[in-house]
Amino acid sequence: MSVTPRRLANAIRALAMDAVEAANSGHPGMPMGMADVATVLFSKYLKFDPKAPKWPDRDRFVLSAGHGSMLVYATLYLSGYDAPTMDDIRNFRQIGSPCAGHPENFELPGIETTTGPLGQGFATAVGMAIAERHLNAVFGDALVDHHTWVIAGDGCLMEGINHEAVGLAGHLGLGRLIVLWDDNRITIDGATSLSTSEDIPARYRASGWHVVACDGHDPDDIARAFDAAIADPRPTLVACRTIIGKGAPNKQGTSATHGAALGAAEVAAARATLEWPDAPFVIPDDILTEWRSFGEAGAQARAEWDARLAASPSAAEFRRRMSGEAAGDSVIQDFMADLLAKPANVASRKSSEMVLGAITEAMPETIGGSADLTGSNNTKTSSTKPLTKDDYSGRYIYYGIREFGMSAAMNGMALHGGIIPYGGTFLVFSDYCRAAIRLSALQQARVIYVMTHDSIGLGEDGPTHQPVEHVMSLRLIPNLHVYRPCDAIEVAECWALALARTEGPSLLALSRQNLPQVRVGIEENMCAKGGYVLRRANAARRVLLLATGSEVSLAIEVADRLEEHGIGADVISLPSWENFQSQSQAYRDEVLPAGPLRVSIEAGTTFGWERHVRDGLRFGVDGFGASAPIDDLYRHFGLTADAITPQIIEKLEGTTNT
Amino acid sequence: MSVTPRRLANAIRALAMDAVEAANSGHPGMPMGMADVATVLFSKYLKFDPKAPKWPDRDRFVLSAGHGSMLVYATLYLSGYDAPTMDDIRNFRQIGSPCAGHPENFELPGIETTTGPLGQGFATAVGMAIAERHLNAVFGDALVDHHTWVIAGDGCLMEGINHEAVGLAGHLGLGRLIVLWDDNRITIDGATSLSTSEDIPARYRASGWHVVACDGHDPDDIARAFDAAIADPRPTLVACRTIIGKGAPNKQGTSATHGAALGAAEVAAARATLEWPDAPFVIPDDILTEWRSFGEAGAQARAEWDARLAASPSAAEFRRRMSGEAAGDSVIQDFMADLLAKPANVASRKSSEMVLGAITEAMPETIGGSADLTGSNNTKTSSTKPLTKDDYSGRYIYYGIREFGMSAAMNGMALHGGIIPYGGTFLVFSDYCRAAIRLSALQQARVIYVMTHDSIGLGEDGPTHQPVEHVMSLRLIPNLHVYRPCDAIEVAECWALALARTEGPSLLALSRQNLPQVRVGIEENMCAKGGYVLRRANAARRVLLLATGSEVSLAIEVADRLEEHGIGADVISLPSWENFQSQSQAYRDEVLPAGPLRVSIEAGTTFGWERHVRDGLRFGVDGFGASAPIDDLYRHFGLTADAITPQIIEKLEGTTNT
Repeated sequence: MSVTPRRLANAIRALAMDAVEAANSGHPGMPMGMADVATVLFSKYLKFDPKAPKWPDRDRFVLSAGHGSMLVYATLYLSGYDAPTMDDIRNFRQIGSPCAGHPENFELPGIETTTGPLGQGFATAVGMAIAERHLNAVFGDALVDHHTWVIAGDGCLMEGINHEAVGLAGHLGLGRLIVLWDDNRITIDGATSLSTSEDIPARYRASGWHVVACDGHDPDDIARAFDAAIADPRPTLVACRTIIGKGAPNKQGTSATHGAALGAAEVAAARATLEWPDAPFVIPDDILTEWRSFGEAGAQARAEWDARLAASPSAAEFRRRMSGEAAGDSVIQDFMADLLAKPANVASRKSSEMVLGAITEAMPETIGGSADLTGSNNTKTSSTKPLTKDDYSGRYIYYGIREFGMSAAMNGMALHGGIIPYGGTFLVFSDYCRAAIRLSALQQARVIYVMTHDSIGLGEDGPTHQPVEHVMSLRLIPNLHVYRPCDAIEVAECWALALARTEGPSLLALSRQNLPQVRVGIEENMCAKGGYVLRRANAARRVLLLATGSEVSLAIEVADRLEEHGIGADVISLPSWENFQSQSQAYRDEVLPAGPLRVSIEAGTTFGWERHVRDGLRFGVDGFGASAPIDDLYRHFGLTADAITPQIIEKLEGTTNT
Repeated sequence: MSVTPRRLANAIRALAMDAVEAANSGHPGMPMGMADVATVLFSKYLKFDPKAPKWPDRDRFVLSAGHGSMLVYATLYLSGYDAPTMDDIRNFRQIGSPCAGHPENFELPGIETTTGPLGQGFATAVGMAIAERHLNAVFGDALVDHHTWVIAGDGCLMEGINHEAVGLAGHLGLGRLIVLWDDNRITIDGATSLSTSEDIPARYRASGWHVVACDGHDPDDIARAFDAAIADPRPTLVACRTIIGKGAPNKQGTSATHGAALGAAEVAAARATLEWPDAPFVIPDDILTEWRSFGEAGAQARAEWDARLAASPSAAEFRRRMSGEAAGDSVIQDFMADLLAKPANVASRKSSEMVLGAITEAMPETIGGSADLTGSNNTKTSSTKPLTKDDYSGRYIYYGIREFGMSAAMNGMALHGGIIPYGGTFLVFSDYCRAAIRLSALQQARVIYVMTHDSIGLGEDGPTHQPVEHVMSLRLIPNLHVYRPCDAIEVAECWALALARTEGPSLLALSRQNLPQVRVGIEENMCAKGGYVLRRANAARRVLLLATGSEVSLAIEVADRLEEHGIGADVISLPSWENFQSQSQAYRDEVLPAGPLRVSIEAGTTFGWERHVRDGLRFGVDGFGASAPIDDLYRHFGLTADAITPQIIEKLEGTTNT
């Protein structure tokens, strides 16, 4: 090597401090502290080809400590990716630059996952490592044989989700997962000793991990540790003892380098310390040439892999899976045809299980699971045997009581590619996974959340287990498609839409209780429209009854009562507010014409229904639930035709009178 | 003891299986498995007096595995609490019975905290144990000297929050915390080996815990373990090896006993196995007498404590703190008067720090903290020195990167009594704590969440750190008061309301960026009304501008522009939707009269604003944010007077034309 490792690493340090200085915003401490580790990783270990950033068998690199984003922008630039350019880096944290404050997977190839919310990058990487082992089991070493590398800081390790991710990775024996812990003993508030006394290596060992330590500023020692990590069959935590902000002579080793520009004086002092006389954003030719050679080194491995793929009898199937093109969705249409012939008056979690039976048989790219509620979420089918340490070809994951970890792992599987993950818990526990659901949406990851027991219909378990505000609050998350289907046909339609959606996650809110099958036609996927007239008024139409999920059949009952009074009411099912919102104004006006009294019925908060109902009536549950059998609860909260119908009539009379 | 421990424990088993059988719903497995442990605890160790369930120096008992609620209902009944009655137990899980599916702290004295969402009871208990040590440091052993006992299952230990709770408890050396782990090796999906391979004791030791194991069905061995736990200065995990559903001969040891009634045949078989011939809900006199004696045993200790309190020079202050009566809130009024004299055009997180300075000085019952964002949340004041293992008298907790654990610990402190906890993180990370915030609300706990960086105003950190949907989604949680104050005066008002609110949590959403002080009067706490006219229109009023927080000053700017066009606009600040909703219709109509065009401005989702704006205009951010300096972002998202004013004028003209 013609350039010393120290100078190679200093290129990262210089870019990090200069970009943060230019933006007067950002986090120089981590990239400067982990520059030596990253240099060893990119120069000698990471399998990648900057000219083919989506190469399926590349190593995955996850910067879980996403605030240190300049580390990844620097390494991508230095090793020869087309982007970011140096101009992009100069515009770090400015509008329009792909070099965002935290790494965004949709901004730059080479960024495998959006990170920043601490702990989640690590947990997402666990999902990537699961995906690798599963696809390896299916397609063999010739096509799938890579590592997942993570840089994580103390924040990532202290977050609760870390326990879930570590437990899952240890249990599944994900030996291809190597986590480089930036052991700098500093957090934002100061020394880690302010808030933790944990023996971190001991904790990892307790969960079945291999732990090795190194001097994070000694390239040879780092390489020794990496070799040990690769050789060990367990997932490995590499404790890299580092100095945060290394190179900034007056601030290094303190939280002052964590999240703010160093300042002109300290940057100048750092240049002297680092023996880096070049102007900001200038990388000396010899250093850039050396860095570029690391990127070029991957081309041959990639070409050999291309040849293996071309020669493989599995090439077509491998390409299909990695492309994300879904197989066999015609089975859902067939399933619905069967339902028309033989209606299924079952819980929507049950009809979900039924259609999943067909889906998982036809779509080998699906991997299911549940956070220890398999028999309640109905997520396991006869096609999905367990994915275990001893058999990664399985397609069902017992995630344990790890809702957040499950969700992040599903993000990792979806982002890895080749897999469509779905997983279940009770809807009320979407609160436990919410931060990961948000990242599914931000990252445009095709993850399908199967959230059952979606209202007070859960019954006796009471308010802690009864979602009230959850459906509405999930509708607020941008780019998340929330479905609350009303019967088996809508369940099948929603599954078809969720599977077909490549640009983001979907969430199915499903009932515990049985629901009558109310749909009578399957010519068109009505859930794709988000809302539609399920049943037209018979008498002169004076009411529009809007409902979702388990309350659609209640709305039909109310409509029947109203008709008995000579009042016509359309029944409108609104399984997906997002899809409805994206319809033309003309279509929406057709479904929700001006004039009739609008009435919503949903066993959840009525706050939010103003969007569709305006000044009409909103029936729901605006406080916490209660513990009782389901019928008692619906009566208690006034969600019965007996309770609702007279209020509508009264409102109509009031309207007429004024 | 005249009755064998086994028969005493079988009373719990019988009640558990009979109540679940009667309800045909519930979880017999845990109470039957942990009956022996609970019997030892209640008979020999727990300090309690059923006739004074709110005795401040009682031991706290937390059933973290809340699904086993019949264990606590049985022990409360058997040991002589006034409630539940046997009729209540007969009506387990029926509407109106305090014996809800999961234990609810508002239903029964003796239930210290609502549990069910796994992991949270444990983490709440950590807060109780912090409260005990802090109050002990303040008031001494004579008044505060108790333990916190927890029963937790594998689910509680597998959840991510467990890592945060264990880390915090270990770091703070909470030796009065004793966790009884129901080590039954069964979860809902089956054997724990399906999903975990963790060496749990090793993990706890790695975090500074003492671990001791016992045979959970051998009273002497259980007592030996308890003695060791009490003797050790560290928090203790007692691994109680048990058989789930013990006593049900055909189902015990399997997940079949976890969450469903055993069935008549198995109940009959269990009666035979347990040698329990009595009819359902009948407790033999000798057993009941013995159990009642355990409850009666506490009366003397309580009487002695009463005497010590009466004799204590700290009696008045101790009583005041435990009563929840807040001290010194007049300081806030003084603070506002100073602001009027000398306006503070600072970020609301900064004015929050300023008022907190006065609050924490006047109110020794406040304990602050932050999840490693102290300098950003501005939660530390000169009155709050750190609470550490070596000095529990401190009033500031460095929670570490443990948002969820912090929130649950605050619930525990609030529920323990004697403390008003507040704690901070970035608003976007409210997603990490959401499940605990919900429990604050359900439990009516006086917890104050200080959530800063409350919009795209956060700037360069980008979409992962910019809350968009969060303010609205928090407004959806029942019984949570969400405040988004617009200036220093409103910040002070919101703090006053949050501190005074004894029936639930409050959350303050605060800006990173500076805000001009716009309020000119302090005669009345306007935030108590939730919404009010901040500035009246000058020209003929055609517009109502509704805004919150940092967008109120923008609304004023827009109003100025409109006035230049001869269009009068009221500016309405809406810091608390909950408070506004609870005003009279007349007041709300006065603030929001019919007629004028309504326009909302809030740097977050516009979904939800239909409640107030109806068909008007809604300005906000309906997708994810972006990484850039704040001014660029507000321009990018059209949140400027330049962008908004013409759209209002256009709308007015359109309205006029039609």
